[in-house]
Amino acid sequence: MSVTVVGSLAYDAVSTPFGYRERMLGGAATHFALAASFFDEVRVVGPVGDDFDDESMDVLQTRGTVTDDVERVAGGKTFFWSGEYGDNLNSRETITTDLNVFEHFEPKLSDASRASDVLFLANIQPDLQLAVREECRAARFVAMDSMDLWINIAREALERTIRTVDCLILNDEELEMLTGAATTVAAAQELLAWGLKAVVAKQGKYGATLFTDEDVFALPAYPLEQVVDPTGAGDTFAGGFVGYVAAQGGDASHETLSRAMAYGTALASYNVEEFGTERVTRLTADEIAGRVSDLHRMTAFTEAPVALRG
Amino acid sequence: MSVTVVGSLAYDAVSTPFGYRERMLGGAATHFALAASFFDEVRVVGPVGDDFDDESMDVLQTRGTVTDDVERVAGGKTFFWSGEYGDNLNSRETITTDLNVFEHFEPKLSDASRASDVLFLANIQPDLQLAVREECRAARFVAMDSMDLWINIAREALERTIRTVDCLILNDEELEMLTGAATTVAAAQELLAWGLKAVVAKQGKYGATLFTDEDVFALPAYPLEQVVDPTGAGDTFAGGFVGYVAAQGGDASHETLSRAMAYGTALASYNVEEFGTERVTRLTADEIAGRVSDLHRMTAFTEAPVALRG
Repeated sequence: MSVTVVGSLAYDAVSTPFGYRERMLGGAATHFALAASFFDEVRVVGPVGDDFDDESMDVLQTRGTVTDDVERVAGGKTFFWSGEYGDNLNSRETITTDLNVFEHFEPKLSDASRASDVLFLANIQPDLQLAVREECRAARFVAMDSMDLWINIAREALERTIRTVDCLILNDEELEMLTGAATTVAAAQELLAWGLKAVVAKQGKYGATLFTDEDVFALPAYPLEQVVDPTGAGDTFAGGFVGYVAAQGGDASHETLSRAMAYGTALASYNVEEFGTERVTRLTADEIAGRVSDLHRMTAFTEAPVALRG
Repeated sequence: MSVTVVGSLAYDAVSTPFGYRERMLGGAATHFALAASFFDEVRVVGPVGDDFDDESMDVLQTRGTVTDDVERVAGGKTFFWSGEYGDNLNSRETITTDLNVFEHFEPKLSDASRASDVLFLANIQPDLQLAVREECRAARFVAMDSMDLWINIAREALERTIRTVDCLILNDEELEMLTGAATTVAAAQELLAWGLKAVVAKQGKYGATLFTDEDVFALPAYPLEQVVDPTGAGDTFAGGFVGYVAAQGGDASHETLSRAMAYGTALASYNVEEFGTERVTRLTADEIAGRVSDLHRMTAFTEAPVALRG
């Protein structure tokens, strides 16, 4: 098996209460690949500019990630994002978004990437996501992300795209915005009726909830004493989640997806402990397994009958 | 055993996207008592005015709650609060807070209330909480709530009071505000160092997390398709939580408190389904047990080893 991811490769400038990075490797596809590569071979599709350096390429290739479809645009500059996080990291202000080579990006997939069994469409313009999805007819499990921008300016294309995938991974507020529903549960129910097998509501520092036709599975975030930089947490979560599904042959059962949630959550918890890709780049398999075990223990309670009155 | 609760009895006017109630029974002690009375005998300490009607007293006495220490202030008016919730119920605006009989409230406990094994100090001025706490020397388990107002204007009294109880139940943002910590985990660690046995961080629609010296236990909120009125959810949670602990003889072990979290969460989920006390007033023991079982199932995942790469 292999996992193909289409999305951004970027340089980020990030300021948080814990420090500043003027230029660090980022982008949805980067964070996704670093996480998913613990589970399966990852193939990255996305554009970079002349400025994308060897060190960044080395990080991207961690654990054998294939970069044959990373398109180097001659004379172009890599996508650049800069942002600043508020005191408790709950609020984020985007300062700069320079699309650069991303502005005219048209995904080009090699035969090998097109043949992957699992596909993740990171947050890009929905028509591009749809084009890639249609190229990858062999995929047994296709998941996608998006953002409020596309809900606002490309709603129809987004809905068309969502109707072709198996799993939508989106922030809870965006799920509500997309459907007009007042709760995440109601939003997820509507989206399952669109034909999705699974909806994952990302709830930031609070965790995530999985909705399938079978049941609901809710998992809190890993409790952390310090969060240094939340950038890329959602894509790292998606990498752990989709990667785990790939390792299970693309199985989309509620049970497999619930376990996938635990891996996504564990990986995301490491991502936010340091800036950008710094922590996950040197993460070990044992560390991931350790936090999955912790999550298991910290969310378990035994049912003991109690005599209720009245 | 019995549980004594000191706190407000109120009439609320509430407007949410789902409707309006001009005058409904409310108050922290009311919501707490309705929930805790499923587990043990509850004794309510709090003031009401001449306008507090028989119907309200009947509701308060559900499942045998003792109202001997409900002080009727002649010529006084019951505490009144009115508020309006925004579209997705995430934001709440207080329109009116008429303290009325609450303004000069001095808790007067009967011998029976003073002798309770379990005590809950709902959100009132911290010096009053402390006075009650010191009267109840027999209590094996004492929990308390508070609010941002007291953190801002009575910080020292609040800290003094917290240092005398076993368990603090507070919104996550208030825990951070109280300690100046950047995360809930760091806030809880500091508060445990003050001598608390347990800290419960309420996270609104996302759930709650329990911190003890032993471990962390995190439980998502019960997933609801529709939320009609969140008023009283926190006090209903506290009632289920503290009530369960009372039913276990005041045991504050991590395991007992984890189960207590499930009961608090189940009760709170019913509370928000209708206005004010409407839903919990006619709630049954079987319905509570059903949602505790649901929560158990919806948060459980099996650990299955996966071969991680790298």
